[in-house]
Amino acid sequence: MNELFSNRISSVSPSFIREILKVAVDPSIISFAGGLPNRDLFPVEALQKATNDLFNDSGKDILQYSSTEGYLPLRELIVADYKNKGLDIHVDDILITNGSQQGLDLLGKVLINEGDQVIIEEPGYLGAIQSFEVYAAQFNPVTVHQDGVDINQLEEIVTSSSSKLMYTVPNFQNPAGISYSNENRRAVAKCLSKTKTFLIEDNPYGDLRFAGENKISFKTLLPEQTILLGSFSKTVVPGFRLGWIVAPKPLMDKLVIAKQAGDLHSNYFCQRILHRFLIDNDLQKHIKKIVSVYGKQKQVMEDAIKQYFPKEVTYLNPEGGMFLWVTLPEKLSAMTVFDKAIEQKVAFVPGDPFYINKRDLNTLRLNFSSVDPDVIKEGIQRLGKVLHDLL
Amino acid sequence: MNELFSNRISSVSPSFIREILKVAVDPSIISFAGGLPNRDLFPVEALQKATNDLFNDSGKDILQYSSTEGYLPLRELIVADYKNKGLDIHVDDILITNGSQQGLDLLGKVLINEGDQVIIEEPGYLGAIQSFEVYAAQFNPVTVHQDGVDINQLEEIVTSSSSKLMYTVPNFQNPAGISYSNENRRAVAKCLSKTKTFLIEDNPYGDLRFAGENKISFKTLLPEQTILLGSFSKTVVPGFRLGWIVAPKPLMDKLVIAKQAGDLHSNYFCQRILHRFLIDNDLQKHIKKIVSVYGKQKQVMEDAIKQYFPKEVTYLNPEGGMFLWVTLPEKLSAMTVFDKAIEQKVAFVPGDPFYINKRDLNTLRLNFSSVDPDVIKEGIQRLGKVLHDLL
Repeated sequence: MNELFSNRISSVSPSFIREILKVAVDPSIISFAGGLPNRDLFPVEALQKATNDLFNDSGKDILQYSSTEGYLPLRELIVADYKNKGLDIHVDDILITNGSQQGLDLLGKVLINEGDQVIIEEPGYLGAIQSFEVYAAQFNPVTVHQDGVDINQLEEIVTSSSSKLMYTVPNFQNPAGISYSNENRRAVAKCLSKTKTFLIEDNPYGDLRFAGENKISFKTLLPEQTILLGSFSKTVVPGFRLGWIVAPKPLMDKLVIAKQAGDLHSNYFCQRILHRFLIDNDLQKHIKKIVSVYGKQKQVMEDAIKQYFPKEVTYLNPEGGMFLWVTLPEKLSAMTVFDKAIEQKVAFVPGDPFYINKRDLNTLRLNFSSVDPDVIKEGIQRLGKVLHDLL
Repeated sequence: MNELFSNRISSVSPSFIREILKVAVDPSIISFAGGLPNRDLFPVEALQKATNDLFNDSGKDILQYSSTEGYLPLRELIVADYKNKGLDIHVDDILITNGSQQGLDLLGKVLINEGDQVIIEEPGYLGAIQSFEVYAAQFNPVTVHQDGVDINQLEEIVTSSSSKLMYTVPNFQNPAGISYSNENRRAVAKCLSKTKTFLIEDNPYGDLRFAGENKISFKTLLPEQTILLGSFSKTVVPGFRLGWIVAPKPLMDKLVIAKQAGDLHSNYFCQRILHRFLIDNDLQKHIKKIVSVYGKQKQVMEDAIKQYFPKEVTYLNPEGGMFLWVTLPEKLSAMTVFDKAIEQKVAFVPGDPFYINKRDLNTLRLNFSSVDPDVIKEGIQRLGKVLHDLL
């Protein structure tokens, strides 16, 4: 049957992380492998109240087909939130999507022809790699450091080739946890301003800052070329699958056509619930609670790493988000560590899937958002033992 | 900016129906243009109860990220429903999608290379045309009659070319309202059995039968090549955006990869609500209520057509579903009628968008599911006056 498939899908492999998560589902395993928000922080009661109020007030209004662009009052709340952050976004430039993952798919669909070049962070978000791979993009990886992307590499890519897109997660990046400094952002913007390359600022974790200062958005530095992706998955709940794209007018027209052909519109019922939840509750207060918990969990993980990991193992220190990035001594493959770690009932994601065409790397991702402090300590201790044994 | 778009999106035009619906949004207009289920039949109370019970019992469990394939117990209910209809479907062959529209997009994504041929009903479902157009399919239209597709035309297409897909809505087709007879289905299956063409049986209206007998599924007649698409939009609610694909194993593997890269998974919260609703309520009883109302509305429309339309105007008589298809005398363009009808405050969809490359046709689609009987009568009377004036 294989000859019947499209070329685009034949080149995409099933997610390696997905396979790892299947291994890690054993409840006796301590898993730092996932990328899940902490379920104990879901605003269950407030969402239940919002849902009930809506059913009582608006009954059948919340259950019908709706517009492709998304529920207007929800988009207006997104505009207001950007305004608080100093960004002036027009409501017509917002499209509600099924999480920001669909934003990536729609952008791939309307922008990428086979062989088009895409600049991608390395290590970079696997979901973005997969999305663009479906449209047969060619990747130009640019290395991620503690303060952002490597500007020399970026200059070289921009000089020697012409890219449709650059994909970035400048705040608390997945997988490396780092944030771009303002200086790095300015340098990236300057570099791209000489090109026609769109810059995607994917910002699912931006509100989850537990240290340091907020940074400038690319939308301010490179307004004409920047596309923003946002998500309610990390600040409210992921199960609603609601996010959004901000894109300039001619591009938005194409995105709306692609969204309509793709699934007509996003879940209307949940857009209404989310909107009701946001007007009846203080989201900033809720986010503060999440930030306080994640900040504590990250600290516990860092302290445990200092206590239990061999000194040769280093890590990048995140100021927010959900991930911490570990580098092993060069000779040690994270895949080898993974196999031994599973025997000791602890899981993580080896670095490999976050790179284009590089294998047996000495890096790995640890998630701290969905694991309780005691369990974090125990898991890092187990992992430390594995590392000591291997080194 | 246009040179930056992908070739695939540049060739797709915004939906003509969408533009018409914008005109028809004026509340003083009687609209037969939409394709909406009747909102008065949404099971609001039962859904509210299901949601509340779930929040009370399962709280945070219903709000987290979930599996790409969809909620297993919901897929098991779909299997059970097929079993009642005499079809033996394995739960692993079902993928939950954002309505069956997303099923079309995923199938286009994993099957269609630029220029691949797709057999499509003419008139045919605009959403399918749009979805496959995005992947640059070439269409082979086959004419729809009262009893199904034109077998001679189909034989000719199959003999002279090689198609990846054939797209069908064999029950209460959109837009023509007709159903394929068992004889027609057998002839289609025989014709395709000599090919490697996949047959898509899209069945959003299949349960909404108010006259005649159920027909054989293509899954029985052509099991290896048939892909089923289903939807809860017409039997429960459209706002949840939940449907499904049934596809054989190697194809399903690719669809799951495409779904994962596209939006990770469908709305989990609504999958859980829908599942709870389905186990706590009698869906067949609910469907009977819908069928009784739609059957009555269709009868009122038919009676009014007989009373008010000129004798030269004919129509196809649907045994279920939501649409009735009208043919005007050959000289009269439905677009001309549309402009005059809007002046008389009544709207419908002219036939043009349902055809590949044909314009100024003398056909039109009337929707009867979402308009109350009195209003149907008044609207058909107005439209009859316009037609009499023009003829």
